[in-house]
Amino acid sequence: MRAEYINPFIESLVTTFRTMLAQEVTRGEMWVKRDETPLHELSGVIGLSGKAVGSVVLSLSAELAMKAASHMLMDQITEVNDDVTDAVGELANMVAGAAKAQLAEYDMSVSLPNVITGTNHHIRFPSEVDPICIAFNCEWGPMVLEVGLASVAVPAEAS
Amino acid sequence: MRAEYINPFIESLVTTFRTMLAQEVTRGEMWVKRDETPLHELSGVIGLSGKAVGSVVLSLSAELAMKAASHMLMDQITEVNDDVTDAVGELANMVAGAAKAQLAEYDMSVSLPNVITGTNHHIRFPSEVDPICIAFNCEWGPMVLEVGLASVAVPAEAS
Repeated sequence: MRAEYINPFIESLVTTFRTMLAQEVTRGEMWVKRDETPLHELSGVIGLSGKAVGSVVLSLSAELAMKAASHMLMDQITEVNDDVTDAVGELANMVAGAAKAQLAEYDMSVSLPNVITGTNHHIRFPSEVDPICIAFNCEWGPMVLEVGLASVAVPAEAS
Repeated sequence: MRAEYINPFIESLVTTFRTMLAQEVTRGEMWVKRDETPLHELSGVIGLSGKAVGSVVLSLSAELAMKAASHMLMDQITEVNDDVTDAVGELANMVAGAAKAQLAEYDMSVSLPNVITGTNHHIRFPSEVDPICIAFNCEWGPMVLEVGLASVAVPAEAS
């Protein structure tokens, strides 16, 4: 995967957490995903397509997801309910949307987020993609961002 | 969700299984997804974006996924390895791609498939979408197709 793809996603995650959640995140390890990377309890997945194609995963601990949803809804949420899964999807959407804007030359559009729950779930990318994973931490808990994009010479959808 | 979205996905699943796997599928129950729908062991998820936006999930039992991969690779695969997850992603991709072609007026493009594994995983859609789920069966086992699409008046990406 091209290195130029990754920085806009990192910046956009930092900015999204700062502006939406008033959380400063610190970046941890970065690695190329090889199959069995453990994910956190809730993972937002969103597809991107255009001159580059792929998807972004934002995986959060249940604690972090509940605190994020509580902040966004100005409520005290103590169980993983629909508000929490919607909040995770919305965060994934904001990270992907802001990164896409910075990667304007790839003319990408985003799909709607899906949110995966279930302990020990894994999210695999097509084997021709080498997704980059980056661990982050904030006061509310840990998260992982995974970005897997491949270039498309001439997208079939181009008009 | 508009009913007109769903038929192209059903037809495309039937055709994909017939042409790629020589399997005749029979359609079972159809329902609107409400949170805790159980999924099978492997789920391919692929995003769509354009004048309609959303995603498609094709969830297969492990047995069906291994038999499908064995057929596609002309090999005998007896464990859920990367070949099996790639096959599930490729099937989801073919179903979405053929349906998108039938829904040309929505000018959609597809992202790359992610494949979710892990027993008891759930895949949630944004709460403003009412995804339609359809159960299917074939000789190799059961599957579920989930389609969640929302219309977009003027996509931000339109040039």
